[in-house]
Amino acid sequence: MATVVMKFGGTSVANIERIQNVARHVKREVDAGNKVAVVVSAMAGVTNQLVAWVKEASPLYDAREYDSVVATGEQVTAGLLAITLQAMGLRARSWTGWQVPVKTDGAHGSARILDIPGENIRKQIEGGEVAVVTGFQGIEPIENRISTLGRGGSDTSAVAVAVALEADVCDIYTDVDGVYTTDPRIVSKAKRLSKISYEEMLEMASLGSKVLQTRSVELAMVYKVKTRVLSSFVAPDAMQPFNADNMENIGTIVCDEDEIVEQQVVSGIAYAKDEAKITLLNVADKPGIAARIFGPLADANINVDMIVQNISADGKHTDMTFTVQAAELPRTLDVLKKAKSEIGHVDVKSSADVVKISVIGVGMRSHAGVAAQMFKTLSEKGINIHAISTSEIKVSVLIDAAYAELAVRALHSAYGLDND
Amino acid sequence: MATVVMKFGGTSVANIERIQNVARHVKREVDAGNKVAVVVSAMAGVTNQLVAWVKEASPLYDAREYDSVVATGEQVTAGLLAITLQAMGLRARSWTGWQVPVKTDGAHGSARILDIPGENIRKQIEGGEVAVVTGFQGIEPIENRISTLGRGGSDTSAVAVAVALEADVCDIYTDVDGVYTTDPRIVSKAKRLSKISYEEMLEMASLGSKVLQTRSVELAMVYKVKTRVLSSFVAPDAMQPFNADNMENIGTIVCDEDEIVEQQVVSGIAYAKDEAKITLLNVADKPGIAARIFGPLADANINVDMIVQNISADGKHTDMTFTVQAAELPRTLDVLKKAKSEIGHVDVKSSADVVKISVIGVGMRSHAGVAAQMFKTLSEKGINIHAISTSEIKVSVLIDAAYAELAVRALHSAYGLDND
Repeated sequence: MATVVMKFGGTSVANIERIQNVARHVKREVDAGNKVAVVVSAMAGVTNQLVAWVKEASPLYDAREYDSVVATGEQVTAGLLAITLQAMGLRARSWTGWQVPVKTDGAHGSARILDIPGENIRKQIEGGEVAVVTGFQGIEPIENRISTLGRGGSDTSAVAVAVALEADVCDIYTDVDGVYTTDPRIVSKAKRLSKISYEEMLEMASLGSKVLQTRSVELAMVYKVKTRVLSSFVAPDAMQPFNADNMENIGTIVCDEDEIVEQQVVSGIAYAKDEAKITLLNVADKPGIAARIFGPLADANINVDMIVQNISADGKHTDMTFTVQAAELPRTLDVLKKAKSEIGHVDVKSSADVVKISVIGVGMRSHAGVAAQMFKTLSEKGINIHAISTSEIKVSVLIDAAYAELAVRALHSAYGLDND
Repeated sequence: MATVVMKFGGTSVANIERIQNVARHVKREVDAGNKVAVVVSAMAGVTNQLVAWVKEASPLYDAREYDSVVATGEQVTAGLLAITLQAMGLRARSWTGWQVPVKTDGAHGSARILDIPGENIRKQIEGGEVAVVTGFQGIEPIENRISTLGRGGSDTSAVAVAVALEADVCDIYTDVDGVYTTDPRIVSKAKRLSKISYEEMLEMASLGSKVLQTRSVELAMVYKVKTRVLSSFVAPDAMQPFNADNMENIGTIVCDEDEIVEQQVVSGIAYAKDEAKITLLNVADKPGIAARIFGPLADANINVDMIVQNISADGKHTDMTFTVQAAELPRTLDVLKKAKSEIGHVDVKSSADVVKISVIGVGMRSHAGVAAQMFKTLSEKGINIHAISTSEIKVSVLIDAAYAELAVRALHSAYGLDND
């Protein structure tokens, strides 16, 4: 008898018919004798309506009230799923974030989970009842107010519940049937990975693959929660119930890299379209200049990603290029303008017409030549590279947006990832 | 400095524009130095959508899960109003039923408020902040689950909050500007009452006048909460802020009858259209027969209103007529059918094509002839009376639905209530 956490996102619970489909997935696990906690998102569209109301009430809204309004979406789904499960003859009850309780810090709108005392839910599922938990939310215990984890936070809720219950698996049901070597909409030969390491998934998630939220992968990695990505749109009775000895027949398992026997050098190609590039020309080449540029951006909570500083030709001036989220571009330019006196009068060029393409794989730690292969492949296609950044397990380049699909397809093929 | 509780119903908060209108009403009171708690319903239409989802999930839903789903409606409004008040420069925060906490019993779907510890909210409003409280809901403290008070329960929430805060007034803002001598849609000469006693309002409320929920009036009567019915659609700056010395210039005050100086014999005419009449013919006229009929109905939670038993002509058989809510008619007939063996084989006739018309006034305690006047008026119009019931302060008759408007108009005129 295993303890299984199942998470269903907004499109999987978009209406009552789909909630009934979700209930059948849950019933399959209960009928097999598994102890089940389900984590649900708001029905697709509901959160958007709630956010629209908040913004109509005031564009400068109070984050605590925003949280209280927006958290209702998951509460509705949880109640409806509990009712649907009961109608199928199962015992079930819903749990809101404050009932569990999912204790968070006070960073309303993007709260972090501090602790989930699991005893209430554990007692319930031990007795054969299904616990349906609202994703995305918790309670900040000092002021006793509802907090939310930010968009996509239900994945994090699911992993945190799995930690609290010491679950055997955290199954994340989405609208895709696993993690692919790259986006199958761009590369028809993309392959589903049966396993991927936490580290690689983390890079994938933070580089624009929207399958799992970054923080959920971080949490899974820290607590070694075996996480699986599955499709909720597979017929519930066409799937086998969870079985620890045979997990790989479906979906993608996110796990420790030691558990992946046949490790590839490159596991996947990711791309991020919502990048913007900013170049400061003729910046004074002197100590402290980077701090003067990036200090004000950090103060304004703007996340800077790639940073490239050219060697100074004359020893006095240099160029500085960096990227931010495209949505942050106007605000970034505004901050730079205000910091003009500190940075000095420089020319600023910007473009949102760029993409970041990344090659990811834990295998590159022990294999040289991965980056060189990337540059060669792009060069053969005549694609110019604006900026490069690397980590232990990935190489990212910034290129013109027009070449995005071409680059992804060429790299996918070059690293031998194409499906036959 | 007075403590004012303001309650706004679903049509008053139906969209952000109306919520802004509500906020201006609140601002008027705060600017005048009053301490304000606001109680809000769900935005019009939201509760219906939530209930529809629940029923689609399962017609036989769990009342606890129903409560958890449906209670989200008021939580949304409370957050949006708090944000709107803040945007107007006021300090405000929302309170859900469990945050206050509004402690109720475990009768999910129609819970009764047991206790509201007022200290949290009192501390807040003493500091000049507006407390926005979700109506209609509370928490059942043993299982720690959300409970709802049943439809229209926000009025009851408002009065209960007024009790907890020892408020000077509980202002119920609705879509009408007060309580009228009868429905102005039927009688154009209907007059707004500046005051009405709790007892009369209770009869009005339970007899189909939808201005205030019955339980809210009961609660106001027990705790002597001065309750006022006002229109939220009057321009907020066209109204004076609350002033204990000058309350009667607007709306209708529901108060102790001692406070009403010029008491009328008859205060109003009410009618209830959702009645159904059931007649059992040839019932055995013997001790215990009433218990055998009404016992099973009570067990099935069916509320019986008027009961008329005819004198037996032959000493052996009699006819029994009673009324129930029209919506309960099919269930009532079903219960009677199942109790056939105990009641005996009798003919059952039923009709939902009836209305109950009531004449109400505390003055009739000391004035004879009110009922006689009613019967004479109806007789002059050729209206047949099917059943009569009386209390200390009202006379009700059951007549054919077709005569409803005619009867109300004739009675309104006969008791001198017409506006000149």
